[in-house]
Amino acid sequence: MIGLILAGGIGSRFWPLSRRRRPKQLLDLLGGGSLVAATARRVEPLCGAERTWVCTTEELAAGVAAELPDLDASRILGEPSGRNTAPAIGWAVRTMPEAARREVIAVMPSDHWVADEDAFREALSRGTSAVERGDHDVVTVGIAPAWPETGYGYLELDAPAEVLSVQPVVRFTEKPDADTAARFKASGRHFWNAGIFLFRGTVLLDLYREHLPELAAGIERLAADDLDADRRREIYAGLESVSIDYGLMERLDSIGCVVADCGWNDLGSWASLAEALPADGDGNRTVGDTFAVDARDNLLFADEGAVAVIGTEGLAVVRTGDSVLVVPRERAQEVREVVERLAALGRLDLL
Amino acid sequence: MIGLILAGGIGSRFWPLSRRRRPKQLLDLLGGGSLVAATARRVEPLCGAERTWVCTTEELAAGVAAELPDLDASRILGEPSGRNTAPAIGWAVRTMPEAARREVIAVMPSDHWVADEDAFREALSRGTSAVERGDHDVVTVGIAPAWPETGYGYLELDAPAEVLSVQPVVRFTEKPDADTAARFKASGRHFWNAGIFLFRGTVLLDLYREHLPELAAGIERLAADDLDADRRREIYAGLESVSIDYGLMERLDSIGCVVADCGWNDLGSWASLAEALPADGDGNRTVGDTFAVDARDNLLFADEGAVAVIGTEGLAVVRTGDSVLVVPRERAQEVREVVERLAALGRLDLL
Repeated sequence: MIGLILAGGIGSRFWPLSRRRRPKQLLDLLGGGSLVAATARRVEPLCGAERTWVCTTEELAAGVAAELPDLDASRILGEPSGRNTAPAIGWAVRTMPEAARREVIAVMPSDHWVADEDAFREALSRGTSAVERGDHDVVTVGIAPAWPETGYGYLELDAPAEVLSVQPVVRFTEKPDADTAARFKASGRHFWNAGIFLFRGTVLLDLYREHLPELAAGIERLAADDLDADRRREIYAGLESVSIDYGLMERLDSIGCVVADCGWNDLGSWASLAEALPADGDGNRTVGDTFAVDARDNLLFADEGAVAVIGTEGLAVVRTGDSVLVVPRERAQEVREVVERLAALGRLDLL
Repeated sequence: MIGLILAGGIGSRFWPLSRRRRPKQLLDLLGGGSLVAATARRVEPLCGAERTWVCTTEELAAGVAAELPDLDASRILGEPSGRNTAPAIGWAVRTMPEAARREVIAVMPSDHWVADEDAFREALSRGTSAVERGDHDVVTVGIAPAWPETGYGYLELDAPAEVLSVQPVVRFTEKPDADTAARFKASGRHFWNAGIFLFRGTVLLDLYREHLPELAAGIERLAADDLDADRRREIYAGLESVSIDYGLMERLDSIGCVVADCGWNDLGSWASLAEALPADGDGNRTVGDTFAVDARDNLLFADEGAVAVIGTEGLAVVRTGDSVLVVPRERAQEVREVVERLAALGRLDLL
């Protein structure tokens, strides 16, 4: 298997820890090194450093390379501009040598957390075999829901599925309401969409030609040998900005799902991070030098300095070198609004 | 009038801003310079720098002197150890030259806030006149309650009193419950005890001899000319540790109250500080570089760096160089518990 790690984006919901120059995937959120390094290490037994590729942005390529010293820099691709995942994945696959493109490629985000890495790898192996056998053009990874999460997308299968089985996907469902999420969790047929896809590169490019013909043509133009940097940048900026989920996956007839039960979390916000940390007897989850007096169910994160709370409940309190954030855990998605306000105020010093 | 400013203590409820070496009275909490300097400036028209004395601790004397450059260092007294207010005031009065002791002395804390300084001074003048006339041995300052505060002590008079009148105190009441506080506020006979006392020094020492004879004897021993530092320290440490309120004032027959309506606040906690700051349209009160998104009634205090909150209500969020504190405003009294825990943990770096 070939690994393709997606490492663009900022992860602005992790402000004030995530910054323009220090995005989420370069952070050590859980004490196991940066998330991108943890992602590469997680799949190393399956594809090895010499078979791992990374797609990030031009700006972040040097930082990503520093986190992945075993990877040849030629396999760390820097997008000239951000055009969402469909262009990034198509371009990265088209950039690989033809021999690699004929293999099964596993595309995966660089900023997720996995508790049971053996179970995770076993699922990837089963999915790879299904693609190799030609059972499906694409196989996604579905995670057995650990709770009725309303913030994730779900994959719906046509029948309850055993862990590690591969079943056809009949529907993609974006963030459900609470009742629907509870029904999904109970059904045995609904799984969290981990945003991980397995396919042969050649097949994927054929699917682009079928479903995203303009994007496919643009990607071909980017593959020309004689392209100078300005022209490349210009073509890339003109690619249709669309996610691979919406632009391709949800339109396919033959898409499978391999079911993983591995303790997965998208680390999408401070609330998600809290779920991945152990709780003390009062339900507090802490990183760094923290003190809680008569306080419950808080996330206390001290990147430096000390954080003390008294009588608080259900808050995320985050301290970095220059900034403090306080938000109810259930509203952690809204951290982006602070980032947007700081951007509107021109406060680049805090971004 | 002679001014005697009490500037011992740490003000640990202002942690993490207040520290052993930087106590509350040396902080600039409201942008008008340190609280002790603001206190001296407030009474300067009444007693002038050459008639102002300060009682603080040995450790803090240099820091206090730096804040009061107009005061002769000989009038900044450093207690060898903390023995509460009755020993401190008696010792300071006994240390003054005899001519000063015969005058009316105004004892006042160094860490309060007053909005209308003219009204405050007018009340002190009226109280001084009442003492000079011999109407009362001691006159206290009672503040017309601005709200039914449950955290203050109250002075009860026998009839509703006009502002600036001087009436006999019939009872001292410590922190009332909410119903009682509401009744007090409505009565016109109950006033906040500002902890400010006016008396002739000679009369006060007579009252000590009558009501606190052992303490009075100890204070006389401290006045001996030939005392070396060790012996002085030893005698001081042996003085009865008692507040002047409990040890003396509450036992007196002839105590008056001058009623002030001057916008007073004891700055006893972060919640009190919030009351002294202007609120924005959402009820947030802020100091420093702060950002509030959909948040109400918070105190956001950034001594350095930035503080951002989303969706929080009624919190105090305080950021200093090394520490962050988050506490519901209504529980701000409990900040001491964090300080006590840090002390128990030996975390002198944070104290």
